Amino acid sequence: MRTYLDCIPCFFKQALEQGRLVTGNELVHKEIMNDLAAKIPEFSWGLTPPEIAREISKLVAKRCGAGDPYKRLKDQSNRRAMELYPELKKKVAQSGDCLLAAVELAIAGNVIDYGAKNTLNVEEEVQKLLAGDFPAGRDGTFEFEKLKKDLSRAKTVLYLADNAGEIVCDRIFIEEFYEGREVIFAVRDKPALNDALIEDAVFCGIDKVARVISSGVDAPGTVLKYCSDEFLKIFKEADLVISKGQGNYEALTDAGRKIYFLFKVKCPVIASHADAILGDIVLKRVG
Amino acid sequence: MRTYLDCIPCFFKQALEQGRLVTGNELVHKEIMNDLAAKIPEFSWGLTPPEIAREISKLVAKRCGAGDPYKRLKDQSNRRAMELYPELKKKVAQSGDCLLAAVELAIAGNVIDYGAKNTLNVEEEVQKLLAGDFPAGRDGTFEFEKLKKDLSRAKTVLYLADNAGEIVCDRIFIEEFYEGREVIFAVRDKPALNDALIEDAVFCGIDKVARVISSGVDAPGTVLKYCSDEFLKIFKEADLVISKGQGNYEALTDAGRKIYFLFKVKCPVIASHADAILGDIVLKRVG
Repeated sequence: MRTYLDCIPCFFKQALEQGRLVTGNELVHKEIMNDLAAKIPEFSWGLTPPEIAREISKLVAKRCGAGDPYKRLKDQSNRRAMELYPELKKKVAQSGDCLLAAVELAIAGNVIDYGAKNTLNVEEEVQKLLAGDFPAGRDGTFEFEKLKKDLSRAKTVLYLADNAGEIVCDRIFIEEFYEGREVIFAVRDKPALNDALIEDAVFCGIDKVARVISSGVDAPGTVLKYCSDEFLKIFKEADLVISKGQGNYEALTDAGRKIYFLFKVKCPVIASHADAILGDIVLKRVG
Repeated sequence: MRTYLDCIPCFFKQALEQGRLVTGNELVHKEIMNDLAAKIPEFSWGLTPPEIAREISKLVAKRCGAGDPYKRLKDQSNRRAMELYPELKKKVAQSGDCLLAAVELAIAGNVIDYGAKNTLNVEEEVQKLLAGDFPAGRDGTFEFEKLKKDLSRAKTVLYLADNAGEIVCDRIFIEEFYEGREVIFAVRDKPALNDALIEDAVFCGIDKVARVISSGVDAPGTVLKYCSDEFLKIFKEADLVISKGQGNYEALTDAGRKIYFLFKVKCPVIASHADAILGDIVLKRVG
């Protein structure tokens, strides 16, 4: 998916948020905004949003130093999600259809996203999840039966992770289908917003149910041209690919293979692209 | 109130929205975004947001021609609000405290704001208003008793309007206190986003309950340095000033006189500045 002019405000929000996570110095924040403004006319709008977001992170790093601005937030999300693991697991077990409940949870867990929402009220979102039923998808943008069928036949499943914390919900989903299958769980190679890295996956115990690998990417989306050969081989050969989050959707809609995209719709551009409504939980087969 | 770096994303949203209202040509939209990006390092952040918004509208006009991009939307809002006038009036009349209900309605009517919300689902907002009780303010950010007392003593009331459509709610509020008083209703002098002009005030029948004047301003907020001498004299001498909307709040927090600010909190920057929470309806005395 290409980048739209509507993405520009979010790029500025992301840049400012990253700068603020690293330093409280408003002069530096201003320099970051000016640097980004200077790049706007140069951006190639044919690129996907994660590719542009990657350039913006590099631009922030130039002013603030390389590092991992979201490290503390990611650790916090992981810990909080792991605390909730038993409760969430119980909620899935008590549902009439465990696979359905687990996939709903996995998509709902996609609210844990600082990059897209620029808010930190994850706790509130999680409490909503625990209080009610998991949100159900709408007909047309929730192709659960198709996924269930393809899953029943698949021997290898490649699962593309999105955010730290959220991956605990992914684990609960994977636990519903990993037995008798090879599941490969791919995370980013280097820090990209609050996206999960290998250390996050291990902390959240994903390595108990899947083989955790890096995709080779340092963008907040699985941009194939940055992926490692090892990853690309798996991506090509896996019986089933499940992709989490908007960033992976943006990067992979034109990837030329069948992919199930699971994400919560957080922006109007994606809503329009995916024929969905803002706030929808989407389970969509493309390709 | 000065402009914050957090305002930048909204400026880009506003510019894009204005460009799109005038032309469907994406190349022009891109030029507008590039023009705005080039201005970012030059903006004086000591200015108020309405002053910057004014510069942005001029920048859009340079690409798209001078005019009134929001004309159709304003007409639509006025017509729809006038259709609802009898129902809203009835709702106020049936409440236990008409003045309170009317002021709640006036503030709630501030949702009709394309500039700040960048959404057009006004109908939905209005239906919510009609369906439930008018939203109540929270202690500390809803100084109704103070306003009521000052209103009872005031002989001249200057009322600073915000958006088209919304002014029908203002009219209903003014109808609760105009008898025996001189009410002056001040609107923008020239188009500024979807803010009300004299023609809007007349269409919505404000001239039946108040003297309608222009403030002299072409910014989406009553920026005193652009106001006419006639307006400034009234502003100085009026017993009571009631100011609607975020734009007027941003422009007038440091105006050096007592003002009652009535607005719905639509952005985190204002929320923080006004010690309020996003979504609050605020009735705040400053000065």
